Amino acid sequence: MHHIQTNPLANESIFYELLAQRKQTVSLAESCTGGMVSSKIINVPGASSILMEAFVTYSNEAKIKRLGVAKETLESFGAVSQECVKEMAINLQKLTDCDLSISVSGIAGPTGGSVDKPVGTVWFGFKYLNQVYTDVKFFNGDRFEVREQASDYAIIKAIEILKSHPMNE
Amino acid sequence: MHHIQTNPLANESIFYELLAQRKQTVSLAESCTGGMVSSKIINVPGASSILMEAFVTYSNEAKIKRLGVAKETLESFGAVSQECVKEMAINLQKLTDCDLSISVSGIAGPTGGSVDKPVGTVWFGFKYLNQVYTDVKFFNGDRFEVREQASDYAIIKAIEILKSHPMNE
Repeated sequence: MHHIQTNPLANESIFYELLAQRKQTVSLAESCTGGMVSSKIINVPGASSILMEAFVTYSNEAKIKRLGVAKETLESFGAVSQECVKEMAINLQKLTDCDLSISVSGIAGPTGGSVDKPVGTVWFGFKYLNQVYTDVKFFNGDRFEVREQASDYAIIKAIEILKSHPMNE
Repeated sequence: MHHIQTNPLANESIFYELLAQRKQTVSLAESCTGGMVSSKIINVPGASSILMEAFVTYSNEAKIKRLGVAKETLESFGAVSQECVKEMAINLQKLTDCDLSISVSGIAGPTGGSVDKPVGTVWFGFKYLNQVYTDVKFFNGDRFEVREQASDYAIIKAIEILKSHPMNE
């Protein structure tokens, strides 16, 4: 086994409870995190009541083909951009008919960075009910550490979004 | 961060090298592992040359809708069955046009087990080029440990399959 669990499920459990209480669902479209966010959520017992499916759209082609991201968006702004994660989240919510959609696209390294978008740049997109949110973070560390921090952040930010909405709006 | 990496990338790197040398691609359809196999593979730098996309088909509905698993298969044998992972792998290869498809479906627990299929039962499906493989394993441990062992095993078994085929067949 490659990982030892040290602080199991803290955020994932909070996230799960918030959605389960509302009888709502989440879906994910992950690029650089590559399934890590989904995997963390699914580690919570009972996750099947909040998560039906998720997509790892790692290539640009997959983003276009599975999520209907516009080729022009990828050409003009790149996959690691606010525009891209926004489109991913919006289209994912429609495709999967979920209450909360989460998208992640970033540069985990060690290569692929630039002056504008250094290694560690990760964009996040969320659509909860009718509202769209985006966020960008710059993480330090190696490829695994960037991916791990990005995965944790996606869940933390999703908790924040859920908490900003009263339960029975 | 919830996991500390202790033995980074050993199997994932071997797996990556085997596919990269052959200029071939992999795709995944994960149920109980929920993206963990994809995430492990994507942790290898350069993974974008072998992995374009993957699916977390956690619910039965997602298995039907995204992968075209027959409703009858799920009704007759259940999602955790040789028949199901076989169909998942075969259909996934067709859908994504990859060289190697990997499917995983199991009971991670703590609930959901039965006498016939105890917690820890995990079925694996593979289609490499024209050949289909299936395997079943029974893992001990908690939900995370079952999922982690299943994820590692999927990669180990895939390495075995790749090695059983000469490189330029």
